Parts: sequence; C-alpha cells; structure tokens
Amino acid sequence: MEKGRLEAFSDGVFAVAITLLALDLAVPGPGHDSLAHQLRMHWPSFAAYVVSFFVIGIMWVNHHALFKSFATVDRMLSFLNLTLLLFIVAVPFGTSTVAAYLRDGGSDAHLAAALYAAIFECCALSFAAIFAWSIRGEGRRTTPLPPGTERSALLRFASGGLVYLVAIAVAFVNAAAAVGAIAAVAVFYMFEQTPAA
Amino acid sequence: MEKGRLEAFSDGVFAVAITLLALDLAVPGPGHDSLAHQLRMHWPSFAAYVVSFFVIGIMWVNHHALFKSFATVDRMLSFLNLTLLLFIVAVPFGTSTVAAYLRDGGSDAHLAAALYAAIFECCALSFAAIFAWSIRGEGRRTTPLPPGTERSALLRFASGGLVYLVAIAVAFVNAAAAVGAIAAVAVFYMFEQTPAA
Amino acid sequence: MEKGRLEAFSDGVFAVAITLLALDLAVPGPGHDSLAHQLRMHWPSFAAYVVSFFVIGIMWVNHHALFKSFATVDRMLSFLNLTLLLFIVAVPFGTSTVAAYLRDGGSDAHLAAALYAAIFECCALSFAAIFAWSIRGEGRRTTPLPPGTERSALLRFASGGLVYLVAIAVAFVNAAAAVGAIAAVAVFYMFEQTPAA
Amino acid sequence: MEKGRLEAFSDGVFAVAITLLALDLAVPGPGHDSLAHQLRMHWPSFAAYVVSFFVIGIMWVNHHALFKSFATVDRMLSFLNLTLLLFIVAVPFGTSTVAAYLRDGGSDAHLAAALYAAIFECCALSFAAIFAWSIRGEGRRTTPLPPGTERSALLRFASGGLVYLVAIAVAFVNAAAAVGAIAAVAVFYMFEQTPAA
Repeated sequence: MEKGRLEAFSDGVFAVAITLLALDLAVPGPGHDSLAHQLRMHWPSFAAYVVSFFVIGIMWVNHHALFKSFATVDRMLSFLNLTLLLFIVAVPFGTSTVAAYLRDGGSDAHLAAALYAAIFECCALSFAAIFAWSIRGEGRRTTPLPPGTERSALLRFASGGLVYLVAIAVAFVNAAAAVGAIAAVAVFYMFEQTPAA
Repeated sequence: MEKGRLEAFSDGVFAVAITLLALDLAVPGPGHDSLAHQLRMHWPSFAAYVVSFFVIGIMWVNHHALFKSFATVDRMLSFLNLTLLLFIVAVPFGTSTVAAYLRDGGSDAHLAAALYAAIFECCALSFAAIFAWSIRGEGRRTTPLPPGTERSALLRFASGGLVYLVAIAVAFVNAAAAVGAIAAVAVFYMFEQTPAA
Repeated sequence: MEKGRLEAFSDGVFAVAITLLALDLAVPGPGHDSLAHQLRMHWPSFAAYVVSFFVIGIMWVNHHALFKSFATVDRMLSFLNLTLLLFIVAVPFGTSTVAAYLRDGGSDAHLAAALYAAIFECCALSFAAIFAWSIRGEGRRTTPLPPGTERSALLRFASGGLVYLVAIAVAFVNAAAAVGAIAAVAVFYMFEQTPAA
Repeated sequence: MEKGRLEAFSDGVFAVAITLLALDLAVPGPGHDSLAHQLRMHWPSFAAYVVSFFVIGIMWVNHHALFKSFATVDRMLSFLNLTLLLFIVAVPFGTSTVAAYLRDGGSDAHLAAALYAAIFECCALSFAAIFAWSIRGEGRRTTPLPPGTERSALLRFASGGLVYLVAIAVAFVNAAAAVGAIAAVAVFYMFEQTPAA
C-alpha cells in the first residue's frame, strides 16, 4: 500500500471533521432574544470551537510529522490510523455536547467535559499506538530513531495522554477548567519547538 | 482518463461519507434526561458508528488495493466506481436508521437492520463488478492474475457478498445479531493477511 | 497558477456536494408510520438521489476530461470554474426540494422540478463557457482542436444545455417526467463512447 | 514539513466550507406558503450564498498564489494558516446568520451584517499575517520580493482589510449595503489583473 493515498484520505477526514465543528456555531436566530444576547449566551460554543479547531489542527500537524518518518504502510498501520480517525471524527460531537452543557450551566457539564477530554485521550492513545508500531518492526521508519531518543519520544507521547487524563479528572471538579486545560495544551504544542518524534 | 484523479475523487467521497457518520452521535442535550442516561440510551448509535466506520475504512483499503492493480481507466470503470460510491455514501443513512430503530426497540428494527446489511451487500456487489471488469479485458491490469488465482479471487469477492446476504436474513430474526455479524466480518477483514485481489 | 491545485479543489467540492445528497435519504424514523411505509413514501428522495448522484458524477468525469486538455489556467478560468462549482454545490438543494414536492404530490412539484432542471441548465452553461474560454485564446489547449471539430464540439455542449431547457418546459406539464428526462440524459452520457471535447 | 500536504489540507477545508454554504439554501418546503413565495422570501439566502461562495473562492485563489511563493513551511506558518482556516470555516455561520436576519427585516440585521463583515476582516488580517511572515525571515520565499514592491504589497493587503472594516461600519447604517459592499470587493478582485503578492 502506498503512504500517499493513506495520507490523502486522512487529510480529507481531518479537513471534514474540522469543518463540521462550525455547524455548532449557529445561533437560534430571529424570533428569539436579541442577536447580541444570543451571541453572548453562545460563548461556550465559540470557545469550544476555537479549542477543538486548534487541537484537531495540531493533531493534523503531528499526523503529518509522524507519517513523514514512515518508510512503509501495512494493514496494522491502516487499522491503527482508522482508529485514530474514529476519534478525530468524534471531536465535533464532544465539542457540541460540552458547549451545550456549559451554556446550560447544570451539573451535567462535568460529565460533558469529561467526555470531551476522553475523546482527546483516545486520540492521544491512538497516536501512541501508531508511534509504538513504527519502532517495533524493522524498516518501518525511513531512519531509525537515534538510541536514547526512543525513550524520550515515548515519554513525550505519554505526557500528552497524561494531560488529557488530568483534564478528565478536573472535569468532575470544574468543567470550564477542563476545557481551559485542553486549550493550554494546544497553546503549548503550538509554540513548542522540538520536532515531533 | 487518469487513474490518479479518479482515486482522489473516490478518496474524497470516502472521507466525507465516513465523517458524516458522526452526525448521528449527537444526543438530545440539556433539558432532557441526565447526560449519563442519554449516553447509555444512545449506545446503538455509538456501536453502529464504530461498525460503519470500520466497514467503510476497510472498503477504502480494498478500493485502494484494487485500483493499484489497474493499468487503465475507462468510462465503464468510472460508472462502476460511481455505483460503488452511491452505496458508500448511503451508509450513514443506513447507520442512523438502524441505530434509531435499535434504540426504539420495536419490531421495525428487523427491517432497519436488513436495510443496513443490504447497503453493504450492494457495496460488495459493486466491488465484485469492478473486479470482474478488471479481468474481462486485455491490459486492464498492470500484471495479469496468475492462472488459477482468478477463480479464488472471484470466490473471495463472492464470499464477502454472501456474508451480507446472510446478515440480511439474520436481521429478520434478530436485528442486533445482524449488526454484530457485520462487525465480525469487519474484524475478520482487518486481521486477514492475504493481499486483496 | 497551477492546474493541479485547481483540479484538486474542484474534486473536493464535487466530492462533498455528491456526498451531501445523502442527507436527504433520512426517513422520519421511530414514532411515525411503519418503516416499510416510510421507505415506500420516500421513493422520490431515493430516485432523486440516484439521478443527482449520477449527473454530478458525469459532470465530474466531464470536468476531468475538459481540464485535461487545458495547457494553462488564468484568473478568468478560475472564475468560470467557480461559477460552475456554485451550481454543482446547489444540486443537493434542488434535489431535496424536488423530492419533497414529489412526495407531497401538490401542484408545486412543477416549479420544484423546473428549479431542479434549471440548476443543471446553469451547470451546462458554465461548462459551455469554460469550453468557449479554451478555444478563444492562443495556447489555452495542449493541442488545438482539429479544424471542423470545434463546431461539432460546441454543438455537443449546446445540445446538453438544450435537453435541460426542454426538461424545464416539461416540468410544468409533468414534474416526474422532467426528472425522468434528466435521468435519461445521464444514462445516455454514461454509455456514449465519443471522447469529451 | 512539506508544503504540498499543508496545501492539500487547506484545499480540503476550503472545499468543505464552500460546500456547506449550500445547506442554507433549503426552503421550508411543502405545507407552508407556495414554493414560488418561499423562493422569493428566501432571496437573502440566495444572495448571501453567491457572495460568500465567490469570496471564499477568491480567498482560495489568493491562498494558492501566496503559498506558491513560499519556499518553506514552519510551525508558525502552520499556526497562522490554521487561524486563517478557523475564520474561513466560520463563513457559512456568518452567511446563514446575516441571511436569516435580512429575511426577518428587523433591526438585528445590522449586527448580523457587521458579524458577517467581521469574519471576512479576520480572514483578511490572517492573510496579512501570513504575508508578513513570508517577508520577515531569510529564505521563506522562493524569490525575494523586488525592493519597493514589499511596501505596495503590504498596502494591497491592508486595503483589503480596510474595505471589510468599512463594511462593518456600513452595516450599522444599512445591513444590505454592507453585504453589497462585500460583493463589490469580490467582483473587483475577480477582474483585477495584478498578480497576487
């Protein structure tokens, strides 16, 4: 199987998923409160839109960087990649759910924020599995990882997953803080200069 | 016509269809039951999402493998490929219908599951037609199939179609079992190591 | 500007538009009539889905064939191509409107079918404008059209547009017949063997 | 990072965003006013659809022209490009909101038109930031801008952003005029012959 078409398909899925996030921006429209009021009340949707957009965008950048280092594609990688995409595609669902419950202000916002963080946790685990695949077999990478960096790369992947785990726990204390933590991770990754493993 | 653009267009359709599956994940939201209850009640949608996602994903892998062996593209192949895509694009419809009726628990779940399996059956028949096209004419494949493998390849395609036929029959006895059978086929294909014909 | 990226963008738009057609397949679901009855009542949506899917598919094939003959891309071609895509993207709207009014059975089905045919007429006119662009300037085609074929090619494009004009007129007499005429054109184009101009 | 995949991903997002505009074309359908009346009442949606379609299309052309001049892609450009896409993807939301309030005819159309223009203003600012990135570092462009043109190019980018700022102000006087001003800019850009900076 060629890497190019797997990347093209993944890019398509990332592009559609990131665009579907915008469906949740819609406000009720005429016949309800004033538009200014509707826009103010809708802030959790706008905030969640920006956070999810950048998280998916960063995951796309990481996907790109990771696959660039691969020399080959097999059935197992296709399957792991599909699993990653399964969770990427679920991000708009998590986003609109957490936004709806943050707007609502009820206690279910905790579970909604935990669900939102859990989807990202599953993305992080899928990335870790793809990375693990790449170092477990001969010839899967174009150039083998320098000795000693394998461990730090694994740690780096694990730390990403750890942050989302913490966000799940934080969600049950303060839903908005969990979303804020995920946003902070996104900002961190965006300005971090180390090349992706 | 060039194969590259036909593949790119097909990849785009597969990517959008697989992403639209996620539209059915949405739960009713605030103002209804507790979110935990809503998520529990929504399990058929989550299950159907995972099954359809992997089945479309596997069909994408098969599409890729099949087209890699083609040396040329003609009007008939374009038409057969469009027919395949017609059914791929209908998968989200079948998925949300079967999920809605499984949630409902009424007797119409049988017909909904049969409809779901029938869409996959049509995909399988389209694949078989594309494969038949490839072996019916001179120079349609980059390398001709080794003698003797043509028959086994045809059998392999036919068996895929047979499983979905069985799932249609099973649907009228037990709707959830039909969806389970389709999931089982997906798992089988995912770990099967024989290269696609 | 490079042709490749214009084609890739167009392919993306075609792929999304063709996939959005499927959103109209959804039936009301549990809590209404029996599913069998719903599916029967929904036949205009299924029929219109198949017709629009193949018409968009054929237009994609024609787009591909047409652009293959172009040697260059300029701002005017970008604008004409955007105009074509504007109407392609409106096809799902025309499709769901005509299907809804055919289901309804009222007299507004005439106008809905005329609207549906008019969208395709606009697509045909856009194609004709793109073709006219290609023969109006030096060096716009990789190989100039053989003398004498220019006229027949123009006639061919005009005849496509004529059929949709007839379908608009037919729509005011019999809405379903207009949709049938559009389906007949699609079948004709699919099996026609002359290479696209 | 390779430029090709960043462009492909951006093309995908542009293609999906431009296609989602069509979701707002849907009229209420059978059981309401006559279809002719519905279509007449729906004119703001049709007008806004055409304007947004061409503005996104032109931005896609500009994106293409701009990236063609880049020799390299870094993390900062990825981030700026994501920011641009964040606003492109929000265009369908702005479009459906302004159309709904223009149909409604109430005084909230002013704010809706200002919101619509503000989204385009944010797109223009993102483009300016991407251009600024390209001239701030060594080796970011394939060929450096000729001396003296840098300033005119910056002016050109700034003037685009200025028009949208004016449209925001106009919106509070006359909502339809603001949409018309944006349409006029689109027509201007379409026929303008200067190559993009």
